[in-house]
Amino acid sequence: MEIQELGEFGLIERLAKDITTRNASTVKGIGDDCAILAPAEGMRTLVTTDLLMEGVHFDLTYVPLQHLGYKAVMVNLSDIFAMNAMPRQITVSLAISSKFQVEDIETLYVGMRMACEKWGVDIVGGDTTASLTGLAISITAVGEARPEDIVLRSGAKPTDLICVSGNLGAAYMGLQLLEREKVIYNEQVEEARRSGSKEQMEALREAQPDFSGREYILERQLKPEARGDIVAALQQAGIHPTSMMDISDGLSSELMHICKQSQTGCRIYEERLPLDYQTAAMAEELNLNVSTCALNGGEDYELLFTVPLAQNDAVSALDDVHVIGYITEQDKGCALISRDGGEHVLKAQGWNPLK
Amino acid sequence: MEIQELGEFGLIERLAKDITTRNASTVKGIGDDCAILAPAEGMRTLVTTDLLMEGVHFDLTYVPLQHLGYKAVMVNLSDIFAMNAMPRQITVSLAISSKFQVEDIETLYVGMRMACEKWGVDIVGGDTTASLTGLAISITAVGEARPEDIVLRSGAKPTDLICVSGNLGAAYMGLQLLEREKVIYNEQVEEARRSGSKEQMEALREAQPDFSGREYILERQLKPEARGDIVAALQQAGIHPTSMMDISDGLSSELMHICKQSQTGCRIYEERLPLDYQTAAMAEELNLNVSTCALNGGEDYELLFTVPLAQNDAVSALDDVHVIGYITEQDKGCALISRDGGEHVLKAQGWNPLK
Repeated sequence: MEIQELGEFGLIERLAKDITTRNASTVKGIGDDCAILAPAEGMRTLVTTDLLMEGVHFDLTYVPLQHLGYKAVMVNLSDIFAMNAMPRQITVSLAISSKFQVEDIETLYVGMRMACEKWGVDIVGGDTTASLTGLAISITAVGEARPEDIVLRSGAKPTDLICVSGNLGAAYMGLQLLEREKVIYNEQVEEARRSGSKEQMEALREAQPDFSGREYILERQLKPEARGDIVAALQQAGIHPTSMMDISDGLSSELMHICKQSQTGCRIYEERLPLDYQTAAMAEELNLNVSTCALNGGEDYELLFTVPLAQNDAVSALDDVHVIGYITEQDKGCALISRDGGEHVLKAQGWNPLK
Repeated sequence: MEIQELGEFGLIERLAKDITTRNASTVKGIGDDCAILAPAEGMRTLVTTDLLMEGVHFDLTYVPLQHLGYKAVMVNLSDIFAMNAMPRQITVSLAISSKFQVEDIETLYVGMRMACEKWGVDIVGGDTTASLTGLAISITAVGEARPEDIVLRSGAKPTDLICVSGNLGAAYMGLQLLEREKVIYNEQVEEARRSGSKEQMEALREAQPDFSGREYILERQLKPEARGDIVAALQQAGIHPTSMMDISDGLSSELMHICKQSQTGCRIYEERLPLDYQTAAMAEELNLNVSTCALNGGEDYELLFTVPLAQNDAVSALDDVHVIGYITEQDKGCALISRDGGEHVLKAQGWNPLK
């Protein structure tokens, strides 16, 4: 169905009918000039927002709309978790060009609702409008935390241990794989067109690249998970990180943010960078240095945090958390210690859309 | 200066240096994964968001960037006021194409800061990223109110008086004027190009259309004001509206929202629609029916609200507030009573970007 058949209010009505709210702090969701929230007494409210643009942040030739919706929500929840807080509500704004149909936007919403359901988050409002070219998605997430639980980027202290959850570089490798297959596919289409072979064109239309054995890196790129489970595990273990942020632009870049804002330096060990087997295999196939991918790949949405040295045992006992180095005095700078023991100054070479 | 010289973090740093926070409820603004807010005890939090796309919501051939920044903020504050609440914080997300320079974005921010300063609002975060074509602006505003002060769209009751602040249709007339001048200017440039006259081209480059006597309608289009003053006046007069919303898409459309959500009908009088002289003059010049413009023009950002009949004297005593009709039972439908006494069913013909 064409979106203009429904118009803005018709589309909002259709999308809103599947949306219910469940949080005690959600007084009123979609349907008025504003959403109304009732923060619990003594709690802090956390607010974060992201703007995703087609062609810059996602490529719809290989990103399914349902996955895109899921990811667009998860990257915002990830920022709430990175404050050691719990997400509660989101608003969703979409600008939609004429190439999209009502069903496309519904599929996008299915993914968004799935991500929200996973973490008990309510969709409480937004804006639905037109765009001249492509899709724009702007999500704002609201979370809550007790004041004493909140973790900033600025609290790291010399001798603190540097920890990351999960593994690094997989989402970047997934992206490289998708980009490579896109190039190959486009070349095949071009060739079929030149040869004028109808059979070849028909076959290409049905063709699916073989991604077997690479499902993990694809899922990391297409359907990342915000690490609320790590926030819960830290809480249960009684560990209060001294600093924390999520890894969206790449480990190097994020670690340098923590060091700058904490006025410290750091040392991390190349041999300690957590890697998945598929990440390493894909890097080798593409002739890329896997450590560089892990340091700068971006879109991992893992948590990077620091804990006092005294909590070494507690943090080492946690599932899926890895100690990769330590915080130093600021004058030591930020460096990676390579496998051969050499020190290499860290550089923020990660994702930077405006460079 | 080219934006890529600075990159995302450099640009954010440069924009953030002029931003300070002043609200008691702002614990931490720009610089971490989230902003941290401390809602006052017993208060509700209001959240609203808008996504503005170049070419759909604004045309940079005649909208100065500073005005655009001002307006982008004001339209969000207007939604907070429409709940009978006070705005406190905003987040600002921008997607910027390569045609913009650092100074452009700084100019946009000057306008945004001016709007924030007017109402004591803090810029507490956002996202700054790239776009393939044009500028996208997504602003989320956070406000606060005592629970008992909040006014929804759904509380109107039969016999309530329907009121609007200010006057209607002026912003729409301003837009028509700007669009007309743009067409004329483009024709002149085309003609000069065809004739190959360098002098003519030079003259056109310096040319400014004569807008004298039309400043008001232009200002209403380019630099609208959210009516926080009306919210304050209502409070001071002890008037608690039964329903309220702001007029962004046009009076007809908004009044029908109130009636639908309140399960009522309404009657409004054509002769009572508040009009400015410049609006009427421009409508006549363009052969447009001025009442139609007032009903459907949109972008007025005035407040539309209902009060119990018993408050007729109190509301009539307010500056710049006009009683334009009354609420009826739902089965009476929504109608305009024209100057000749005829009843005309209201239609939502206002701004609808997806139609």
